Amino acid sequence: MTVVDGTPLTAVRHVLDERALDAVLISRNAHKRWLSGFRLGDAEGPTSGWSGTLLVTRDATLILADSRYTEQAAHESAGWDLVPTTGPMHDELPDLLLRHEIEALGVEASVVSHADWFRLAEAAPGVELHAIDEELVPLRLRKTPAEVDAIGRACALTDACFDHLVGWIHPGMTERDVAWELESFFRSHGAEGLAFDTIVLAGPRAAMPHGRPSDARVEHGNVLLIDFGCIVDGYRSDMTRTLFVGEVPAEIRRYHDAVREAQALAIEALRLGVNGQELDAIAKRRIEAEGVAPYGHGLGHGIGLETHEAPRIRASEPLTLDAGMVFSIEPGIYLPGVTGIRIEDIVALEESGPRLLTDSPREAVVVA
Amino acid sequence: MTVVDGTPLTAVRHVLDERALDAVLISRNAHKRWLSGFRLGDAEGPTSGWSGTLLVTRDATLILADSRYTEQAAHESAGWDLVPTTGPMHDELPDLLLRHEIEALGVEASVVSHADWFRLAEAAPGVELHAIDEELVPLRLRKTPAEVDAIGRACALTDACFDHLVGWIHPGMTERDVAWELESFFRSHGAEGLAFDTIVLAGPRAAMPHGRPSDARVEHGNVLLIDFGCIVDGYRSDMTRTLFVGEVPAEIRRYHDAVREAQALAIEALRLGVNGQELDAIAKRRIEAEGVAPYGHGLGHGIGLETHEAPRIRASEPLTLDAGMVFSIEPGIYLPGVTGIRIEDIVALEESGPRLLTDSPREAVVVA
Repeated sequence: MTVVDGTPLTAVRHVLDERALDAVLISRNAHKRWLSGFRLGDAEGPTSGWSGTLLVTRDATLILADSRYTEQAAHESAGWDLVPTTGPMHDELPDLLLRHEIEALGVEASVVSHADWFRLAEAAPGVELHAIDEELVPLRLRKTPAEVDAIGRACALTDACFDHLVGWIHPGMTERDVAWELESFFRSHGAEGLAFDTIVLAGPRAAMPHGRPSDARVEHGNVLLIDFGCIVDGYRSDMTRTLFVGEVPAEIRRYHDAVREAQALAIEALRLGVNGQELDAIAKRRIEAEGVAPYGHGLGHGIGLETHEAPRIRASEPLTLDAGMVFSIEPGIYLPGVTGIRIEDIVALEESGPRLLTDSPREAVVVA
Repeated sequence: MTVVDGTPLTAVRHVLDERALDAVLISRNAHKRWLSGFRLGDAEGPTSGWSGTLLVTRDATLILADSRYTEQAAHESAGWDLVPTTGPMHDELPDLLLRHEIEALGVEASVVSHADWFRLAEAAPGVELHAIDEELVPLRLRKTPAEVDAIGRACALTDACFDHLVGWIHPGMTERDVAWELESFFRSHGAEGLAFDTIVLAGPRAAMPHGRPSDARVEHGNVLLIDFGCIVDGYRSDMTRTLFVGEVPAEIRRYHDAVREAQALAIEALRLGVNGQELDAIAKRRIEAEGVAPYGHGLGHGIGLETHEAPRIRASEPLTLDAGMVFSIEPGIYLPGVTGIRIEDIVALEESGPRLLTDSPREAVVVA
């Protein structure tokens, strides 16, 4: 994996050279924003019409938008040449490719539907289509200082939200109440939206790594697991804390300590050049020492313009950690039917070592 | 286009017969819910792991879910056989297809990414993949009475929300304030979420058919266009009203009257067997009589488990309207830099004629 410095556009044109392509078509929301500033919500699919799709050739930067998005494109993606569109991809693209003498086109095959790919291939028989998803991954792997700042702002708002929640949550509330309060806090404090569907799980329900908030109530003697994040200036946060509601059994306190220590050990071991698999093994050893099975998910994931992006820190994936990477560290213990505990923070790896971007208390907070 | 009666499962198995397929793989969120009850949010993509993907064979109904979704699948899709998954589609599916003797598989090519399709085709060379998107469209075209009821509940909540907004909006508020109040109302009154990103546009900004709420303020003498909807029990609403903020110029009042009359004329012409193009022409004639260009979008779109689904009512599409169809009627006038006016309602077409599911006042409401 080579890492390219310079502007996003320089990096993408470097991919053109490496893969002998004449242009790339950019359909992924995160990439549209990264390259051109064009903003889309998570629910705005890349395949429903032309929502600011980018065409980057060696000497042109075009943004294709149907009538819903032309004004937004002109405003947010200044410097890009606006191509207003009316028909579907296979109607609009062939002529444009011909005009720009594109014979080899990179396409994000993991985002573009098979139907669109197939119709485009039929409508532009003179153009070779190449999947270029993997080539684009390394380009966003090391964040710029401005990107780390933006992620840091989302993380700071997440800390502020947690602080608010700790004073607000009381037994008897439902998981849904907590999720809505949290979203309201984010939205009324400048966030663009949620980074992902908030997870709020009370008591034994916390054993689901990705459960969704229900009408289950926060009850004395239980844990309350909250996994949440927001979007600020396009960049995202992600943090998990597991609260105690009043007095919880000694066993749960012990598991919470184990998860906290597992996370601390992994963060202590973080430095340039360390292997992600090693970090995962360190965290898992501490949890296994408690006599329970470790988490089944990865130890961490990269974050930035997407909530889950490269790098992935997990047992199955060799990965050398490098300066500029920003990712979560989130060990957990899940005991189906009993309880679940997870602690998650976002870390920026710098030359001098790890810097925690989320920094709410990690020792168990008791609400009552 | 043949319309099949019976349960969703019967209808899908009828497609197996017609297309000589052994099974279909269901990836579209709306289809997962329609067939099995499995619920996903709009931002939960079908291609990121196994989020309740369905496999319907002649004698089996399977739901594939990775660890994030197994508990949800067991709970929401009772009666479907749960297949827990860990790897990607091309790892998990070939063996399963072999066990069920699937040689011809229908796949939703407009939802599945080209990368997934391609890898599956490589990993299961003995299986023919067929795009079956178009065959599934007619199955949801005519709503059941229970579906019309669900859409009606979402529409009733939308009317209630509008009533609340009319008493709440005052000059000086921003578009974003209005959008957030509206979302809060929906969420605190039982909606699962928004049917789509709310459009709130003040003054000349209303000329954008799909603008997004900004910090622009609601000002005296302007219009305020609000296009919004919610989700109740999976079914959606969609309504647009264009308010007057205090006294507006006579020209704007006249355009509002024209749009209202264009909508009324189209609704009056609605009956079984009428052509969608004819309705569109009726609405456009009334607007052109005002000496302005008619709307560039369609007159209406179907609504149900998706905000935009079949049928589409527009100049370019022959369509015979039939009982059970539920759709919007939404003419508009857009004068770039000046103003925009749109009035949109949801209509259920019944044997006896059209029934309006949204029913807020259509004459211009003045807020001040």
